[in-house]
Amino acid sequence: MENSLGKLFTITSFGESHGRCVGVIIDGCPPGLPITEKDIQREVNKRKPGVSIADTKRVEEDKVEILSGIFNGVTTGAPICLLIWNKDIDSSEYERMRFLPRPGHADYTAFMKYGGFNDFRGGGRFSGRITATFVMAGAIAKKLLNLIGIEVLAHTIEIGGITAEPKGFDEIKENIEKNPVKCADLKAVEEMSRAIDKAREEGDSLGGIIEGIALNMPVGLGEPVFDTLEGELAKALFAIPAVKGVEFGSGFSAARKRGSENNDPFTIRNGKIVTATNNAGGILGGISNGMPIVVRVAIKPTSSIAKSQQTVDIKNMESASLAVKGRHDICIVPRAVVVVESMMAVTFCDLAMRAGLIPRVIK
Amino acid sequence: MENSLGKLFTITSFGESHGRCVGVIIDGCPPGLPITEKDIQREVNKRKPGVSIADTKRVEEDKVEILSGIFNGVTTGAPICLLIWNKDIDSSEYERMRFLPRPGHADYTAFMKYGGFNDFRGGGRFSGRITATFVMAGAIAKKLLNLIGIEVLAHTIEIGGITAEPKGFDEIKENIEKNPVKCADLKAVEEMSRAIDKAREEGDSLGGIIEGIALNMPVGLGEPVFDTLEGELAKALFAIPAVKGVEFGSGFSAARKRGSENNDPFTIRNGKIVTATNNAGGILGGISNGMPIVVRVAIKPTSSIAKSQQTVDIKNMESASLAVKGRHDICIVPRAVVVVESMMAVTFCDLAMRAGLIPRVIK
Amino acid sequence: MENSLGKLFTITSFGESHGRCVGVIIDGCPPGLPITEKDIQREVNKRKPGVSIADTKRVEEDKVEILSGIFNGVTTGAPICLLIWNKDIDSSEYERMRFLPRPGHADYTAFMKYGGFNDFRGGGRFSGRITATFVMAGAIAKKLLNLIGIEVLAHTIEIGGITAEPKGFDEIKENIEKNPVKCADLKAVEEMSRAIDKAREEGDSLGGIIEGIALNMPVGLGEPVFDTLEGELAKALFAIPAVKGVEFGSGFSAARKRGSENNDPFTIRNGKIVTATNNAGGILGGISNGMPIVVRVAIKPTSSIAKSQQTVDIKNMESASLAVKGRHDICIVPRAVVVVESMMAVTFCDLAMRAGLIPRVIK
Amino acid sequence: MENSLGKLFTITSFGESHGRCVGVIIDGCPPGLPITEKDIQREVNKRKPGVSIADTKRVEEDKVEILSGIFNGVTTGAPICLLIWNKDIDSSEYERMRFLPRPGHADYTAFMKYGGFNDFRGGGRFSGRITATFVMAGAIAKKLLNLIGIEVLAHTIEIGGITAEPKGFDEIKENIEKNPVKCADLKAVEEMSRAIDKAREEGDSLGGIIEGIALNMPVGLGEPVFDTLEGELAKALFAIPAVKGVEFGSGFSAARKRGSENNDPFTIRNGKIVTATNNAGGILGGISNGMPIVVRVAIKPTSSIAKSQQTVDIKNMESASLAVKGRHDICIVPRAVVVVESMMAVTFCDLAMRAGLIPRVIK
Repeated sequence: MENSLGKLFTITSFGESHGRCVGVIIDGCPPGLPITEKDIQREVNKRKPGVSIADTKRVEEDKVEILSGIFNGVTTGAPICLLIWNKDIDSSEYERMRFLPRPGHADYTAFMKYGGFNDFRGGGRFSGRITATFVMAGAIAKKLLNLIGIEVLAHTIEIGGITAEPKGFDEIKENIEKNPVKCADLKAVEEMSRAIDKAREEGDSLGGIIEGIALNMPVGLGEPVFDTLEGELAKALFAIPAVKGVEFGSGFSAARKRGSENNDPFTIRNGKIVTATNNAGGILGGISNGMPIVVRVAIKPTSSIAKSQQTVDIKNMESASLAVKGRHDICIVPRAVVVVESMMAVTFCDLAMRAGLIPRVIK
Repeated sequence: MENSLGKLFTITSFGESHGRCVGVIIDGCPPGLPITEKDIQREVNKRKPGVSIADTKRVEEDKVEILSGIFNGVTTGAPICLLIWNKDIDSSEYERMRFLPRPGHADYTAFMKYGGFNDFRGGGRFSGRITATFVMAGAIAKKLLNLIGIEVLAHTIEIGGITAEPKGFDEIKENIEKNPVKCADLKAVEEMSRAIDKAREEGDSLGGIIEGIALNMPVGLGEPVFDTLEGELAKALFAIPAVKGVEFGSGFSAARKRGSENNDPFTIRNGKIVTATNNAGGILGGISNGMPIVVRVAIKPTSSIAKSQQTVDIKNMESASLAVKGRHDICIVPRAVVVVESMMAVTFCDLAMRAGLIPRVIK
Repeated sequence: MENSLGKLFTITSFGESHGRCVGVIIDGCPPGLPITEKDIQREVNKRKPGVSIADTKRVEEDKVEILSGIFNGVTTGAPICLLIWNKDIDSSEYERMRFLPRPGHADYTAFMKYGGFNDFRGGGRFSGRITATFVMAGAIAKKLLNLIGIEVLAHTIEIGGITAEPKGFDEIKENIEKNPVKCADLKAVEEMSRAIDKAREEGDSLGGIIEGIALNMPVGLGEPVFDTLEGELAKALFAIPAVKGVEFGSGFSAARKRGSENNDPFTIRNGKIVTATNNAGGILGGISNGMPIVVRVAIKPTSSIAKSQQTVDIKNMESASLAVKGRHDICIVPRAVVVVESMMAVTFCDLAMRAGLIPRVIK
Repeated sequence: MENSLGKLFTITSFGESHGRCVGVIIDGCPPGLPITEKDIQREVNKRKPGVSIADTKRVEEDKVEILSGIFNGVTTGAPICLLIWNKDIDSSEYERMRFLPRPGHADYTAFMKYGGFNDFRGGGRFSGRITATFVMAGAIAKKLLNLIGIEVLAHTIEIGGITAEPKGFDEIKENIEKNPVKCADLKAVEEMSRAIDKAREEGDSLGGIIEGIALNMPVGLGEPVFDTLEGELAKALFAIPAVKGVEFGSGFSAARKRGSENNDPFTIRNGKIVTATNNAGGILGGISNGMPIVVRVAIKPTSSIAKSQQTVDIKNMESASLAVKGRHDICIVPRAVVVVESMMAVTFCDLAMRAGLIPRVIK
């Protein structure tokens, strides 16, 4: 296992879905940054299931506790430990499924890799619940990025094949707070909600696409040739369960464009060099170019579904069928929005520190 | 800069496009592996421009030299240094363009990040030529993977919007050797070639998509939660200049599927657990599941084009136009095929070593 | 700050002396290892102040809790979080000394490096209390090492200039349990105890030397040229506050020997290659040679003393004098014995895993 | 093997004693630093055997070549590759000794760890010749440190039991250039020289102690709790073959002192906080305190000696005797002086960058 990410701003995730807690250590956060449990709680709450639409029924308080690294409300330079105690746990269903790996889930590979010793309850380390640790770390990363003006935002742009109309940054920011699918196109929201309801009725699930945006990026984040901005960000995003694709700027559609279309012409605006278009998604040569970062993340449909599926009883090595009961999101896209934001923030923090863009002591 | 990749099988790339050489250190290769310069040369030759279709006109011998780590034709456990001396260099064009960053290229970000001290000739560290160092490392990685049966293959599946029909592994392997675009669908090859010719005539360029496949993967590669197989592979692939998207298995199309369609049912075949479909691209929970790895990589159109483009003279801060002369690939997709293969091999080697699947001494 | 150590067996320490807790994450421990809180408690208890001789008066229960990574009493492969809640804390004295750095202590450098934001209470991250996190990690490391037969032992060989007579491994093991200074020479123990008493009366403190031994080492631990066994072990040992020197085998006295004396002749014993002497301390070329590892660690006298000392009021930038009240060890050597053992165990685990000598799954 | 050192200023060593070359990659050096081959050559020349006293007879030109990372005489931010081609190689003696491991040398452990595939000629990777790569990296590190005023110096303080009288920094600097043993006490130099001559006549070898000093250190180098200044420096120094002990400030003698003696009182000098004494060797809590760094390194006597020694024929598993012919230093201490300096410089550079004390671009 490798549960640490980042070189100078390093997060280490721990805990299991049905264990005592989930938590994260943030090492490398400069001293002098004001942080309260409320700041982190606010972010963690965004990960909570929405009103009724796209949610697991597991309702946890998910109360954040600061265990170390913050003194008198300010970071000290010491490692910050943030923790959420697990409550409201019912593991009975998982005992039943222990040797029946859910199709599309990590049950089979975890069993094989860890010799059957992995904590299988609720998916253990492979549960979406682990992303709560990413969000806690992201809360601190966002605070740090704010100091240098960087703003990170993610939103749902597609669910179940229904795509949202493009909107401006401010409209996105405002609209996603108004609806449980975190989509800026309020017309699409209705369709998406209906699609989720339909999938629920049919015991099925939906996937979608999340777009992440970062504004006010300085030039210079990214450490080529290997620790490129795209590469580091993609690695961080693929740590989110269910992510199966990542693209930047024009992404896969760039493959169909000509150079003369896809290249972003340089121009001068307000005495600053900018590009007239942003097919590059704000990244050239693996380094931020000062334009908004644009990244899109493909989320596969939730693998746990009520419909009966074919699997194998790995104890007796015989065919079996499985219908996953219990509480599962029909579509995790809305809840993953803040997770995408968090992984963006964590990655930018690390690269900004590596580029010397964040002070060693906050004053 | 960060020019090392991998935790146990570590490659360190160095050199510039128009400097004295490009080279790579491979640290962590187990002792006892037979390697000759020929083995590496064969791979490097695959990166050479094709017959006439999709190429730069720079013709380099690109002769591989082993400087260290191999003794009596066998690896010793010491770091392996592989080197190609640069020849046939004409940097005059780059002097002219020094302060005229090419749209879509790293010229601007490199200038800003490195304070104008970067070696700008031929793109310096940001040249596609640097991928020759990836291919040299990949040659050794492939040899190691062969020991445990893993076979890695990449091929062109789309150029300029023209898509290839899907083919079986053996047909792909055979057909891509027959044509300069490295595509298994020989009918599509003709269209792709024509499209490249047309783009050349118009002073423009094309992008495309490469698919990478790995067969005979053992279960267990990937170290969640952060060093997932997807994450590590994506990071390695985004180090290839021009890559703007990476997806696994059903990838972005998974976003439009339902769980019941996208989940791969488990079944037993020849006493082994397999999945009936492979929408997961061989990866569940960030860990290989024993099915073929399937990854697709979006390559943007070459940014250097003959057509006139708008840019900024960054010395005088005024608008300028730029038509890139010199020798440039119209479409780098065919040459990038072996680079994708190499980065896959390097990543698998590192993860296989981390999973304890490659012996510490080869016997 | 950098609070992680180890490449494959990685420990991450967190917490402060007077904060809520001290804790450690162990990442990379193979699944299948039986571990109970008792196993860890036993080791942590060894760090407790001895009967009356060499101790702080702070009496904490120091009860170990397992927060993650262990399921049904067995490691799962997931990161293990171990925690001790802080109790019995009186920080009043530290408020008084906040701007009066104690000579010989980290107060001054921590204040400067962390811009005055560091948690100064009880030394914060620089307290000896942090070594409890090393001991918790060491408890797990020792368990792993036992699987491959390695036994690690440390003992006091010098305190306040009083040196112990050399003893055999078994005698050391037996005798150190019998006395609070953890010295195998029971005659020296009496003198050492008297010296400690005398220093206490005079408001002063003592240092000493700890020797660490490891038996049944396999050949091959150590990854030259930089991650040598000596280098990795020294780095780990210098993380223990108060360590100012580390030597292996004949160590500094080797500097006065001739090659013919210092070289250990190879010979065959029971069909196995061994050395007739062990001036190398079990390490040749940075790699274990199968002989016992012998390392010695110089511990400076405790910097917090009751005697008045000269310091500077860093707020007002004026001379000041300081007599440290409160509870402090007169000599930390006895309590550091288990910490030395723990850092040895942690280092050996990491290097044994890197050398492929510990299975990926324990069966 | 692990041949990279440093987190932000990273050096990667490669090459073998009797292979084609020895070389080093420096990754992370900021752009804008003027560097010529002469700068590096000057340092490498200091490693050359002295006039006649303490040397191997192998005489190599050791001409440094810059292969990458420097453009128009200035660093570019890209990885710097420095190389020395091997010449004047006679490997015949090593063929004879292939299965006769030299006592005190890495022959045995290298053979075992690398399955007999290691390049045994001249010790391969375990030769003192590898330290030439450290010196090349050190040359660049020293240049960087000079920018922020740090000066690093090492000198011989003991050879064969003969100890030098302490001298001031300037006298050391001046005197060590005047004599081949690099000792500042010119009287001791004579005795040391005679002792070396005597050892040579007797077919034996000598060890000694080197002291390293760094002036004008800023406060704040060192990243506790694990990447302490002592720990990082010790790890780097133990990479030098023959080093068996490292101590800081009062070091092992601190173990015999009382707190009241060993603590360095703080005082104000020229408006700056300093310590009245420097028993801490410039380091408190693993962080530089602004006083001179003082480190001492124990060098064991050269293991290759002309005298006959007992060993084992590892092919036939029988006792054997071995007298090492060929060219070997009687005492490597003088040649190791610049190597100690280099490892200090490399470590300080990395820690200074991590503390944000070196600019990202040199202007």
